[in-house]
Amino acid sequence: MQKKSLIIFLVLASIHCHAQQSDSIMIRKIYDEALTNSKCYNWLDFLSNRIGGRLSGSSQAAEAVNYVQMELTKLNVDDVSLQEVMVPHWVRGPKEQAWIISNTQKTAVSICALGSSIATPKEGLIAEVVEVSNWEEMENLGSELIRGKIVFMNHPMKPTYVNTFEAYGEAAKFRYSTASKAAALGAKGVVVRSMTMAMDNNPHAGAMGYDELIDKIPACAISTLGAERLSGILKKDKKAQFGFIMSPQTLPDTLSHNVIGEIVGTEFPKEVILIGGHLDAWDLGDGAHDDGAGVVQAMEVLHILKSLNVKPKRTIRFVAFMNEENGGKGGEKYAQSAKSDKRKTIAAIESDAGGFSPRGFSFKGDSLMILKAMSWKKMFEPYLLFDWRKGYGGADINHLHDQGTLLIGFMPDSQRYFDLHHAATDTFDKVNKRELELGAAAMASLAWLLSEYGVK
Amino acid sequence: MQKKSLIIFLVLASIHCHAQQSDSIMIRKIYDEALTNSKCYNWLDFLSNRIGGRLSGSSQAAEAVNYVQMELTKLNVDDVSLQEVMVPHWVRGPKEQAWIISNTQKTAVSICALGSSIATPKEGLIAEVVEVSNWEEMENLGSELIRGKIVFMNHPMKPTYVNTFEAYGEAAKFRYSTASKAAALGAKGVVVRSMTMAMDNNPHAGAMGYDELIDKIPACAISTLGAERLSGILKKDKKAQFGFIMSPQTLPDTLSHNVIGEIVGTEFPKEVILIGGHLDAWDLGDGAHDDGAGVVQAMEVLHILKSLNVKPKRTIRFVAFMNEENGGKGGEKYAQSAKSDKRKTIAAIESDAGGFSPRGFSFKGDSLMILKAMSWKKMFEPYLLFDWRKGYGGADINHLHDQGTLLIGFMPDSQRYFDLHHAATDTFDKVNKRELELGAAAMASLAWLLSEYGVK
Repeated sequence: MQKKSLIIFLVLASIHCHAQQSDSIMIRKIYDEALTNSKCYNWLDFLSNRIGGRLSGSSQAAEAVNYVQMELTKLNVDDVSLQEVMVPHWVRGPKEQAWIISNTQKTAVSICALGSSIATPKEGLIAEVVEVSNWEEMENLGSELIRGKIVFMNHPMKPTYVNTFEAYGEAAKFRYSTASKAAALGAKGVVVRSMTMAMDNNPHAGAMGYDELIDKIPACAISTLGAERLSGILKKDKKAQFGFIMSPQTLPDTLSHNVIGEIVGTEFPKEVILIGGHLDAWDLGDGAHDDGAGVVQAMEVLHILKSLNVKPKRTIRFVAFMNEENGGKGGEKYAQSAKSDKRKTIAAIESDAGGFSPRGFSFKGDSLMILKAMSWKKMFEPYLLFDWRKGYGGADINHLHDQGTLLIGFMPDSQRYFDLHHAATDTFDKVNKRELELGAAAMASLAWLLSEYGVK
Repeated sequence: MQKKSLIIFLVLASIHCHAQQSDSIMIRKIYDEALTNSKCYNWLDFLSNRIGGRLSGSSQAAEAVNYVQMELTKLNVDDVSLQEVMVPHWVRGPKEQAWIISNTQKTAVSICALGSSIATPKEGLIAEVVEVSNWEEMENLGSELIRGKIVFMNHPMKPTYVNTFEAYGEAAKFRYSTASKAAALGAKGVVVRSMTMAMDNNPHAGAMGYDELIDKIPACAISTLGAERLSGILKKDKKAQFGFIMSPQTLPDTLSHNVIGEIVGTEFPKEVILIGGHLDAWDLGDGAHDDGAGVVQAMEVLHILKSLNVKPKRTIRFVAFMNEENGGKGGEKYAQSAKSDKRKTIAAIESDAGGFSPRGFSFKGDSLMILKAMSWKKMFEPYLLFDWRKGYGGADINHLHDQGTLLIGFMPDSQRYFDLHHAATDTFDKVNKRELELGAAAMASLAWLLSEYGVK
């Protein structure tokens, strides 16, 4: 009996060993293909340089939908489709202007309207400034000191986090919610320090939202050098004023689309592995890193599998989500329709952290599923993907959490991301071809393992 | 007895645990300091933008020596000194010119002289071209087909290595040694495809060397797009000619210096932990990544320790080596003088792979020493330094190998390095402040552990 057990064990171990070995060979093939015959860099060139910033509702967003649909069709995958989704349609208007006024001295600084912000009056909004670095400070000052003024939220991203997403996670709420909190105290407008650690003159856009019960006031982001300037002037002159003119508008919601393409599984077609990024992008740059990179990497997964003539056991489905930046309607819509679908999205990999050098994956979901996926880590170490951890999946796929989907965030190196995130500097020339390809290969390898072995 | 052993074990384990915990706290302090109060980025700005390319023997190299000596002195370390070293003095001369001639059509392409190359005749060198991709091909063609011609070594760096240094390691010999091998077959000149995977018009410099027994012929590097152009034209026109003019000169060897600064150990002053990079840099760019970054990161180690008022048990010595690029005389000199020194360099950390996001360390030396250093890996994982492996130390510290020194190469991400290595594009704007600082913190943390615990 003992001998028999041993034999069974040895046979099983050898099967497992053989599987790992043939899996490793497959992963090597995927990487070789990505590093020699990929299309993702050229796709990104088109999305970035020919189409450019593609905020939800814009003509560029519509062009991007058409482009991705067309390129997917060329890949000759099993199915390409558009999923209708109504999205917010906010437009920036002409370039914003701002200045600091201190004793007749007028200093121009760089700002941009935050997404969803209302406009200032046509002639602009000028008022004295109250500088704070968090909400507690603001509330301690109270309406007496804030009424009629502009609140300047000067909260720098903390440099001591090694992963810059942690610093962003801590700071971004000040961009999103300061306007209504300040308006509740009687403020006339809000200026928020840009969410970046780079010291330069580029304002960084991003979403904000209004509390429906409180009056709306205009909100803008100021560049970090502008913020330092404003703070420096306020230290000498408490009566210094800030003036800004911006004329964004919120137009009626617009019909847009998620773009979907898939290779149907040969054995378990109803089990779906989703790979995706978001197609919309802020309008100041061309959205190369956020999130053109994620979209083309996920498309590249299909391209690699088709080029290698791989027939996955489970369905591998690409989704380019619309409207991640200012509404999340694409992700919401996908999850809604997935609920009534007979096919189940068992795992989802999202790339929405830039197209930089790959470091690992972060997992959210059932613990046993995570354990199973993490057991593949060793096979990725030759490709320098060492960082596998529990954590966040991604904004678009997060809507699938309550359906039991294993959510997986692709994690590239984070150091350079917030230098350009949502700013005019998020452009194609900042993307390195190999880094982009290595990310696509990492996603393709993991998607393929999930398609072979499932999540349970 | 068993109980006693258990107690001893528990006590030892608790001491070990306590040490690890206090070490982790120290490493956190080092990182916080590096990410908030570092000087390395400003130092690099000066070295790159005020001094620029600083090839051995140049006035810029001398300026760089003075600058580093001055800045070290400001740090108020225990000792700052210059170590004399004679270095080669090769100068490029005016910008090189090159063109492809095919049926009266003349196409200009970008080249640069390789370091140590002789000049072409004043009027230039024009000849038919023989394209090869390795030495075997060249030797198979033989002198009959090569005599009187220009050999075009078109060996692309292999894209499928994930670590680009492996591809470089394989390709760089063709830059260094093709001239003499081709001359032995009667070639009049050599054009080598630049050692990069980036497709652009930038030629990449780098060292070559002559076999003293064989006639010297001029050798240049051609940009990758130039190489593709030349190869394309040769496919249609076997009689196409290549012409180039360059007038580099080798002047007499020049007196230069390694720059040394140290904090003397409190308990074991005679045991030295070396940290360093090289101060010389190719002349086409400003040498920001190669190796200004390494020099300022190593200087930053001293700065961090001084700022935190750390008194290391063993001596921590900074060395800015001269002449890594075209001779290695600085590293050689340091190792020679270390032999007769009463103080022993027990470990050496070199940063010479660019100032990119840190990934890990590679170790060369005694296996037990490596095991000991690797036992600290866990403490570096919160800083995303996962990749610890046996491997290469660095060109300058390698001369210490036969003295039993533990050699340690700092490993940043390699994807972008060869895009700019030795080219006009190696400039300060390609360096990210945080990535640079994180590298300095990684080196400081490891140097500090080595100073606390030694290598045995």
